[in-house]
Amino acid sequence: MTMPELRFEVSEYETRLTGTRQAMQKTGIDVLIATDPANMAWLTGYDGWSFTQHQCVIVRMDGPPIWFGREMDANGARRTAYMDDSCIRSFADYYVQSDQCHPMTVLGQMVADEGWGSATIGVEKDSYYFTHAAFEALAAAVPNVTFKDATRLVKWQRIIKSPREIEYMRGAGKIVTAMYKRVAEILRPGAKQSDIVAEIYQTAIRGVDGFWGDYPSAVPLIGAGLDASAPHLTWSDRPIRANESIFFELAGVHKRYHCPLSRTFYLGKPSQKFLDAEKAILEGMEAALEKAVPGSTCEDVAGAYYRVIERYGLIKPSRTGYSIGMGYPPAWGEHSASFRMGDHTELTSGMAFHFMSGLWYDDWGIEITESILITRGRPECLALYPRKLIIIEC
Amino acid sequence: MTMPELRFEVSEYETRLTGTRQAMQKTGIDVLIATDPANMAWLTGYDGWSFTQHQCVIVRMDGPPIWFGREMDANGARRTAYMDDSCIRSFADYYVQSDQCHPMTVLGQMVADEGWGSATIGVEKDSYYFTHAAFEALAAAVPNVTFKDATRLVKWQRIIKSPREIEYMRGAGKIVTAMYKRVAEILRPGAKQSDIVAEIYQTAIRGVDGFWGDYPSAVPLIGAGLDASAPHLTWSDRPIRANESIFFELAGVHKRYHCPLSRTFYLGKPSQKFLDAEKAILEGMEAALEKAVPGSTCEDVAGAYYRVIERYGLIKPSRTGYSIGMGYPPAWGEHSASFRMGDHTELTSGMAFHFMSGLWYDDWGIEITESILITRGRPECLALYPRKLIIIEC
Repeated sequence: MTMPELRFEVSEYETRLTGTRQAMQKTGIDVLIATDPANMAWLTGYDGWSFTQHQCVIVRMDGPPIWFGREMDANGARRTAYMDDSCIRSFADYYVQSDQCHPMTVLGQMVADEGWGSATIGVEKDSYYFTHAAFEALAAAVPNVTFKDATRLVKWQRIIKSPREIEYMRGAGKIVTAMYKRVAEILRPGAKQSDIVAEIYQTAIRGVDGFWGDYPSAVPLIGAGLDASAPHLTWSDRPIRANESIFFELAGVHKRYHCPLSRTFYLGKPSQKFLDAEKAILEGMEAALEKAVPGSTCEDVAGAYYRVIERYGLIKPSRTGYSIGMGYPPAWGEHSASFRMGDHTELTSGMAFHFMSGLWYDDWGIEITESILITRGRPECLALYPRKLIIIEC
Repeated sequence: MTMPELRFEVSEYETRLTGTRQAMQKTGIDVLIATDPANMAWLTGYDGWSFTQHQCVIVRMDGPPIWFGREMDANGARRTAYMDDSCIRSFADYYVQSDQCHPMTVLGQMVADEGWGSATIGVEKDSYYFTHAAFEALAAAVPNVTFKDATRLVKWQRIIKSPREIEYMRGAGKIVTAMYKRVAEILRPGAKQSDIVAEIYQTAIRGVDGFWGDYPSAVPLIGAGLDASAPHLTWSDRPIRANESIFFELAGVHKRYHCPLSRTFYLGKPSQKFLDAEKAILEGMEAALEKAVPGSTCEDVAGAYYRVIERYGLIKPSRTGYSIGMGYPPAWGEHSASFRMGDHTELTSGMAFHFMSGLWYDDWGIEITESILITRGRPECLALYPRKLIIIEC
């Protein structure tokens, strides 16, 4: 079996491992079981659409991480992860969606065999795909283990991006810029939403400038007319209508690294409500991005935005941004820092955020966002698409 | 707020509710909390990319189902679900990815307020997105509730398709047929995998014959050359190579209903190993599909396939099919019946399966599958693409 084509140097994976082990030591965790697919990929390079099944990466204090998953996906681990075959373990297929047995029982047996039957083990209690049944089966198999919640441990390790990660995210930024250029070319009254999205996908996956497009952790989200009151609806074959707004939340993606971006288009002459909201949002974002520098906190950035839009009579009960980097379905947020009141995370060069300034009300909504890299100076916008309400004349 | 455009008659949702309540009664469950997004959609019509957050549909013995989720997504429920506003409840945004509090605590409070604080409540312990932390928070909020596992309850309710569901799946079958026709048009040595996938998406989302394309629960899966040893890898910009096989696992999708289909292409003159495997698979599928009639069991179908391929010296340690219908990421399988030894589910007209005959070995793999509808007679193939190894001359 040939060596996989890794996306990072083995030394970078080893640096990530060292950091993770330090965090484990700080929190008294002997062994970490990471089930979040982005954490698994970040730790090992493993990349596959296998989070339909129970699987994990085990981080131990001695020795490389261990990949554990469904037998048929072990070959995927051999093709993508940096560890050798002794670190790739699996469960047989009859455990899959069985009423009689659970794959996490096999994991528990392995934990015992490795001598960790009385250890303190970190599990990602609130990460996607770590079900209650998974925990029950694991805990039953190793009743003397002390389990500790480690949901955010690896996620916090991921927050500062390396040069190569930044390179991938800049590539993703080029891709999403191209996606919006394509939208602007074809968005016209009468066009079907599904035809627009088909073109978005074509541009997204083809990629740009040698950066091929990976699948986004979330599909294109659309809010047209009354549907713009909801932030997370998808498309149908409904036609684009004149004298209506439509927003998109899209992401360019390269090697699992995301650059999300939202833009709102108005077909026709925008109502004063939209123009006022645009003014408020753009002024708010300027104020917030002034604060998006090392030494500020996430709360500083969020507060600057909320204060401006409140002056315009607009409220936003939701957070106004979150850390981004690599992601797997269903989400591209890293689940560490958020731009919200109460989040005192201090910004550092190398962090990246989707400044998610969107506003949604009873019968309308507007999204104009920016994905930014915190630098030593002013934040760098990862995409380069005009930050404004885009008017399509018709 | 206008009435949402429902995908099924309200009477069909009410029939589903009746069946679900009967199943609850049989298993002693007073209240059901359904967290699987496909179950939520099947019960209420709710459709949104909000399974990034904790959310659920509550089925009670009196009154319509209740949708519960993030505040900003409640508007999505108002746009897509059939129940009125009194059945749409939510939690505030500060509960999202907070270290201090959990949205399921709010759900627990609601359960208590509804008078269910000592009830027997079914939860989907092993469904995607129902995390261990979610259960912990819920259980802590209502300590006198008896929880029972109901992971498969709604999934088994979904196994027999209604006429309209079948209509959507037939539409999905037309879409996936068109997707493979497009692949055959453009698959050539030197073409980039990403460019092929870009075209697949364009065809998939445009749709066919008035059936617009919805997003698939899983992205296109590809196995080229050595990567064909793994069933669940995705693409890169690697070029298609001559004298190599490449399989795709794709799905056409309409209104969340899936028609999956896998095909293997060989660029050049196939090796004898591939021709022998094709022969075995096709003969095995013929034998298995002969059994895919009412009265047979899933084990009968699976056994017929395994016996044939074993005669050819091939083994398949994994199940050879699963129930299909509606789906949300990360998977399109319904998690009820599977074509495997030990599954004694009796086939009935209206069931649908992806006959997943794929074989993966150390350094090669081949997938030629079929999505079928069980009828009163012979099974109906939902897609109409030649069932064979597709040879591309070059």
